[in-house]
Amino acid sequence: MISVFPVEGLPEVDAGDEIAELVLQAAGLEEGDVLVITQKIVSKAEGRLVPIDPDDPQARRRLVLSETVRALRQRDELIISETRHGFVCANAGVDLSNVSRGYAALLPVDPDRSARHIRDAVRARTGLEVAVIISDTFGRAWRHGLTDVAIGCAGIAAVVDLRGTVDATGRELAATEVCIVDEIAAAAELAKGKSTGNPVVIVRGIDRRWFRESSVKAEVIRPYGGDLFR
Amino acid sequence: MISVFPVEGLPEVDAGDEIAELVLQAAGLEEGDVLVITQKIVSKAEGRLVPIDPDDPQARRRLVLSETVRALRQRDELIISETRHGFVCANAGVDLSNVSRGYAALLPVDPDRSARHIRDAVRARTGLEVAVIISDTFGRAWRHGLTDVAIGCAGIAAVVDLRGTVDATGRELAATEVCIVDEIAAAAELAKGKSTGNPVVIVRGIDRRWFRESSVKAEVIRPYGGDLFR
Repeated sequence: MISVFPVEGLPEVDAGDEIAELVLQAAGLEEGDVLVITQKIVSKAEGRLVPIDPDDPQARRRLVLSETVRALRQRDELIISETRHGFVCANAGVDLSNVSRGYAALLPVDPDRSARHIRDAVRARTGLEVAVIISDTFGRAWRHGLTDVAIGCAGIAAVVDLRGTVDATGRELAATEVCIVDEIAAAAELAKGKSTGNPVVIVRGIDRRWFRESSVKAEVIRPYGGDLFR
Repeated sequence: MISVFPVEGLPEVDAGDEIAELVLQAAGLEEGDVLVITQKIVSKAEGRLVPIDPDDPQARRRLVLSETVRALRQRDELIISETRHGFVCANAGVDLSNVSRGYAALLPVDPDRSARHIRDAVRARTGLEVAVIISDTFGRAWRHGLTDVAIGCAGIAAVVDLRGTVDATGRELAATEVCIVDEIAAAAELAKGKSTGNPVVIVRGIDRRWFRESSVKAEVIRPYGGDLFR
């Protein structure tokens, strides 16, 4: 059985805060837990807030373009960006919600590194082996509604072949490569709670065979030219 | 807390079987449970297996094209199809795995209706209000690895606004429309178990305020012309 529950009572996160420390003060972790951490607090801890003139309607657009390697599509205020990391998402992940007026939050420079840092900090303080996923909220082409996905991970396979090589009828199967870090990020979103939610969720009971070194960059991001929709 | 666990010991499903009956024989359901049911067994129960010549390399392609309204992209054996339902997925969801040699499984004709049928059958037999999601495994543009998504639902909102209208700093927020049925389908995939897995997973503890009439067709599928990538 898999259990999904939020870490309640976390304080506001500021630049320089050690997220692992805050989580350990608020929750009892167990070996094999997966911590799913909202990108926003990682960006805050890493000082990725930048000032933005709230009265200049073009300021946000300029900031988005500065974070965009390629603008895949544009419509009105919306830019579908390819970011420096290789993510394809709305407005390069630049976010003005849940930050002070006059500031915008940028994505972490290297979310896999952010995840490793938090995983290592938990290990150093407790000796526990946990996995960490940094999540953000992306749209999905051809479908309404956003879902949380993984933008960084540490200590857990990003993609695993869940189906083996032979199905129940003995027929040979093509590999079914499943992006489990996206599925875990999605599961976590359901347990954040209402309104702005709790920014850290624990997912307990994930198959321990999936725990290994990995990264979203290496296993999930398709390079330019590696897909059919750019 | 949300709990996610498989229904174990389900028999093979054949045409005409009542899936609700099989689930009730195998598991103890509770009010407010969400049953996530793999498309494959729904297609089997609804007689959506069609004969296909296993020695004709073009047979599958012809079948895929017959299920495709628009072929958005093609590369080698892969066709990115828009199906009659409006789903955009690989090979129109035509699947040769986990069916007898010489047969292929097509998607249910109306997966929302399939979900309603199972939800109604549970209610008729037990008086319990449960929600039902029919799931399938789709790719995600720009990312490696597949994730389970909802192709039909009953008794639960497909999309909800999780963030309210004001964030923690008092700033007005644009709506954050989250596709919770995709997130629940993703969570369920993690608990199916290895190899071919258990085709039904129970997700318990989902916010009861999300229980209402809804459908994937009405709330999730973007019509042709309603997105930026067709």
